[in-house]
Amino acid sequence: MNQEQALLKVKPHLTEHRYQHTLGVVEASLELAERYGANKQKAMLAAVFHDYAKFREKEEMKQLVLEKLEDKTFLDYGDELLHAPCGAYYVEHEQGITDQDILNAIRFHTTGRPGMTLLEKVVFLADYIEPNRQFKGVEDVRQIARVNLDDAIIEALKNTTIFLMKRNQPVFPKTIATYNQLIQDKKKEK
Amino acid sequence: MNQEQALLKVKPHLTEHRYQHTLGVVEASLELAERYGANKQKAMLAAVFHDYAKFREKEEMKQLVLEKLEDKTFLDYGDELLHAPCGAYYVEHEQGITDQDILNAIRFHTTGRPGMTLLEKVVFLADYIEPNRQFKGVEDVRQIARVNLDDAIIEALKNTTIFLMKRNQPVFPKTIATYNQLIQDKKKEK
Repeated sequence: MNQEQALLKVKPHLTEHRYQHTLGVVEASLELAERYGANKQKAMLAAVFHDYAKFREKEEMKQLVLEKLEDKTFLDYGDELLHAPCGAYYVEHEQGITDQDILNAIRFHTTGRPGMTLLEKVVFLADYIEPNRQFKGVEDVRQIARVNLDDAIIEALKNTTIFLMKRNQPVFPKTIATYNQLIQDKKKEK
Repeated sequence: MNQEQALLKVKPHLTEHRYQHTLGVVEASLELAERYGANKQKAMLAAVFHDYAKFREKEEMKQLVLEKLEDKTFLDYGDELLHAPCGAYYVEHEQGITDQDILNAIRFHTTGRPGMTLLEKVVFLADYIEPNRQFKGVEDVRQIARVNLDDAIIEALKNTTIFLMKRNQPVFPKTIATYNQLIQDKKKEK
């Protein structure tokens, strides 16, 4: 499936605003894949489909998590998290994408997870820094992303955690576990 | 054991600075116990002994965690965490305190844990706000502590997490789990 075909498949599922964001994530993913040596075709596909379930009914997604998905904890940390693991499921079953690395890049693009693959890291970070994003701290992460992939992800995870805590929102445990693992990996490198 | 006897037992294990901090934690614990209805004798004892292991050899404590303690994850998040769970062990085996609530208040005074008892909350918070503490945000937490015990702990956990993240330090998973649980309890109350 080439980029044009993939975009045609995802477009009916998105608002115009979210479609523009998706185009930004594709652009950023391809750039990061080029820089850090990830598979560009997979990066493109994961980016195109990363928000596939963004506008699904919440109740339908909750039911899907309960009935079909392994990690039920996605239910306990706010509805915003559902579209990533549910998206991976729908993309597999409705669009016939079976590559596990692509599906995991979709599945963990919001929360991260310890032991993310290169492709997962690329899509996670691309979603955070794509050109349409405008929020406090994003320019710093963009700059770090030009130098070190893990450092940029650490910065993004920190920003997200602090953002949530300042609003008294729960923090997904895997997000902290991802941060801890990347911090500990950095220490081992030294 | 009255307060005077307990202080005599802990004093040889502490520096003068840490002894003064301990006196502050006793004062703050008694005040919080009074305000929120915790057992004052237990609050006093837990406060007196909370830093009992602060100056033990790190290697001895690591060995103790490996050989005797249930939760090995205390080893993976910086040596600063060791004195709390190891302190609970030493206080039980060297000072003969067997009350589980007192021992848990010592054990979790640095990290917190989901489902903290009232006594654990009192000692955790007292350690954070005792009168000798001077750091950014402490006065806010002191003020919240006069109104709502859980809200003050949430604020302390947020400050600690943000402090650690800004320094690229790992964050103990139980600390985030404690924050999440208190946030979720608040939502249920509404």
